[in-house]
Amino acid sequence: MPASERALIASFRRQASVGRGVLKGIGDDCAILRVPPGHETLVTTDFSLEGRHFCRDWHSPEFIGHRCLTRGLSDIAAMGGVPIAAFLSLALPPKLPQAWANRFMKGLLSLASRHHVTLAGGDTAQSPSGVLADIFVLGSVPRGKAILRSGAKPGDAIYVTGSLGASAAWLKELLHGQEPDRMPQSLVPQPRLQTAQFLRQKNLATSMIDLSDGLSTDLSHICQESRVGAELWQDAIPRATIRKSKVSLEAALHGGDDYELLFTAPERKAIPNQIAGVSAKKIGRITSGQKMVLLTGAGIKVLKPQGWQHFEK
Amino acid sequence: MPASERALIASFRRQASVGRGVLKGIGDDCAILRVPPGHETLVTTDFSLEGRHFCRDWHSPEFIGHRCLTRGLSDIAAMGGVPIAAFLSLALPPKLPQAWANRFMKGLLSLASRHHVTLAGGDTAQSPSGVLADIFVLGSVPRGKAILRSGAKPGDAIYVTGSLGASAAWLKELLHGQEPDRMPQSLVPQPRLQTAQFLRQKNLATSMIDLSDGLSTDLSHICQESRVGAELWQDAIPRATIRKSKVSLEAALHGGDDYELLFTAPERKAIPNQIAGVSAKKIGRITSGQKMVLLTGAGIKVLKPQGWQHFEK
Repeated sequence: MPASERALIASFRRQASVGRGVLKGIGDDCAILRVPPGHETLVTTDFSLEGRHFCRDWHSPEFIGHRCLTRGLSDIAAMGGVPIAAFLSLALPPKLPQAWANRFMKGLLSLASRHHVTLAGGDTAQSPSGVLADIFVLGSVPRGKAILRSGAKPGDAIYVTGSLGASAAWLKELLHGQEPDRMPQSLVPQPRLQTAQFLRQKNLATSMIDLSDGLSTDLSHICQESRVGAELWQDAIPRATIRKSKVSLEAALHGGDDYELLFTAPERKAIPNQIAGVSAKKIGRITSGQKMVLLTGAGIKVLKPQGWQHFEK
Repeated sequence: MPASERALIASFRRQASVGRGVLKGIGDDCAILRVPPGHETLVTTDFSLEGRHFCRDWHSPEFIGHRCLTRGLSDIAAMGGVPIAAFLSLALPPKLPQAWANRFMKGLLSLASRHHVTLAGGDTAQSPSGVLADIFVLGSVPRGKAILRSGAKPGDAIYVTGSLGASAAWLKELLHGQEPDRMPQSLVPQPRLQTAQFLRQKNLATSMIDLSDGLSTDLSHICQESRVGAELWQDAIPRATIRKSKVSLEAALHGGDDYELLFTAPERKAIPNQIAGVSAKKIGRITSGQKMVLLTGAGIKVLKPQGWQHFEK
């Protein structure tokens, strides 16, 4: 067992105490959790693999730890749920500096603490190649109230939170030889938990998904599960701003790793422009066909899912 | 996305339907589960990494899939719990034959089906090196009834199920150049779920753990969490039989991957010799010190945790 693995387990034990909904964390064969009465359990799991989802040369350890947990929390948000506990399986290469692991954990735990999520367990191992993380998040939602991908109806309006394309545009700059630079704090993706819980509590959304693979691909998942089509209004899509200029339409339409919410709501429901400090913008409507189209100034284009396939070295 | 990953997702979708306690499996941002009222939720996660926990040259894909899930189910058993759902994160190297992945899934799903466990989700990715699997199992136990590691009391008897050392002895033969051979079915480890549930229902065990790291190491976990010592009776330890001869004391004492149950019970409680078709044998007693000792024909030896560190190539 390399030093870093032993230190990690110690750090797990220190951090992974009991908390809201967690009766027993690390130190037995299983963690013991309590889901509130009348609630269902939500479960999601996401890999973060070096060379596939991140690159140690380009991303800071804190950012990688933060985004590792963001992937899980964002899935809980997409159902309108409340996260309870996270479990981290982490395999590290033998020569990884201990400081890297510590900074990774710092990024992850700081996000966990902000959302009152307990790190309740996990597994550690020596990795045969690169850093391998697998995050598992468990949450809850009142019985029957989860917001599914399958509830969109023709005529519903389509909304998106925040702005899109920052992660993809940032990565493109790096791939084109820009000096690796820390991503500005304002561009670091955040799981939209409070916004999603508001939508669920007010019964506003008919369907919802988080934007991990890119708008075109994630919208196609809603269309597929709801058996509907969609039209998006090109000029309405909120594009992120990097170095004082707006990102390309491509990045906003197909870029991944934004972790904003994409949801549908009946036309008659009033959706606030800001929900829990995050903007919500109408960007199109659900149609009765099975096709997705993009309305541009010049006419109508068919929209194909061309979402982010993660970057490969 | 390599062909095998796409096929795997399709196979996940086919297999990962709804089942006992699973309202929604694959196909949304999260799985939705229902834990029975009055129950707590148990959660465990375990890596199975090529070159660390298994070797493709020596272990059949079915065996690797079977043991991947056994690791998780055995942790649920160790708490006296009932498993509900499993989540598999699986990263495969680009050139892995599709048949290997299919056979891995067959081994895993056949065990899942035997224990009425639904594969309710997971993640897939291309692996930078070797097969990487991470299994997450969620189960339930009536409130306050989980059997912990921390409940052993001085004077309690120590029991173990089945026989020990088969996995370690088998591996040692391979390491010493024996022809790789399929492990006989009788030696393939099984999670002792029914046995553990009987102990919990009858309120017989004061503490319990599953033998994944080896008797000496796993007993030390019970001693540590319960703040007690232990004496083991060398001649009472049930050793597995391979090729008609008993495995070494070393293999039975320190070998890992047996997935039998180690538990303690008050002396006055009658423990059946067979529980749900599995033998249970008294092998020692809990003492008030903090030390572990082994009583041999020749006297008393101090017993150090020397459990299995998994094999490294």
